[in-house]
Amino acid sequence: MLKSFIEKSMRIEHIGIAIQEATQAQTLFAKLMGVESYKSEEVVEQGVCTIFYALDNTKIELLQSLAPGSPIDKFIQKRGEGIHHIAFAVDDIRAEILRLKAQGFQFINEEPQRGADQKWICFLHPKSTHGVLVELCQDIK
Amino acid sequence: MLKSFIEKSMRIEHIGIAIQEATQAQTLFAKLMGVESYKSEEVVEQGVCTIFYALDNTKIELLQSLAPGSPIDKFIQKRGEGIHHIAFAVDDIRAEILRLKAQGFQFINEEPQRGADQKWICFLHPKSTHGVLVELCQDIK
Repeated sequence: MLKSFIEKSMRIEHIGIAIQEATQAQTLFAKLMGVESYKSEEVVEQGVCTIFYALDNTKIELLQSLAPGSPIDKFIQKRGEGIHHIAFAVDDIRAEILRLKAQGFQFINEEPQRGADQKWICFLHPKSTHGVLVELCQDIK
Repeated sequence: MLKSFIEKSMRIEHIGIAIQEATQAQTLFAKLMGVESYKSEEVVEQGVCTIFYALDNTKIELLQSLAPGSPIDKFIQKRGEGIHHIAFAVDDIRAEILRLKAQGFQFINEEPQRGADQKWICFLHPKSTHGVLVELCQDIK
């Protein structure tokens, strides 16, 4: 029945991890996963510096705050370092927002914003997803 | 250099999500991801009921506590519902434990235990991984 909405299963594009300070964390996650990060990118509008690792089947994104009061800074102040969000890859982010809104899901931002790694992104509100911060992301062509 | 330790990149076997009560959450995540769960399994030794979804490139595991004082119950009491752990698939869990211990990582349990979905599992301590609870899991052949 649900298959009528989505033709194929969703794909985890990446998992986001909030970290306090990138230098030591970047090395530690490389040791943990046995692979060096392949790029680092600042997203000034989101107040964040991102570091990406390519795994066999998905990516890991480390997130370091660039400024006090940024979303990552607030997250770490409240909860400490740790897993921050799960990002699903979608082909058409606006269609997916409409589909999920019709199902009762709430969004932090309904208007897609430019994120790291050449993506349009938006976030569902964790209060509508059992505390899980869910990102949707679509490649910017 | 790190490639000398691991011949291929690691693979995310699943992402674990702690939930308070399974019935409503099971339906909600099916709506979110457009796929029904494919199985539910109790792991009495861990005090947990698990619900699995197969996505395009990995799995999602919902975790509901079966008893007060279980690890999932404690997690929810402290942090609320949300993302609980990231699980990496490994071919030889004991070799991987030795590799990571030599790198300075700490474990919650160094002796693999039987987990859900026919796996040997062990957990690294989040204090050695920037607050991320990391599971290693190996198929029980």
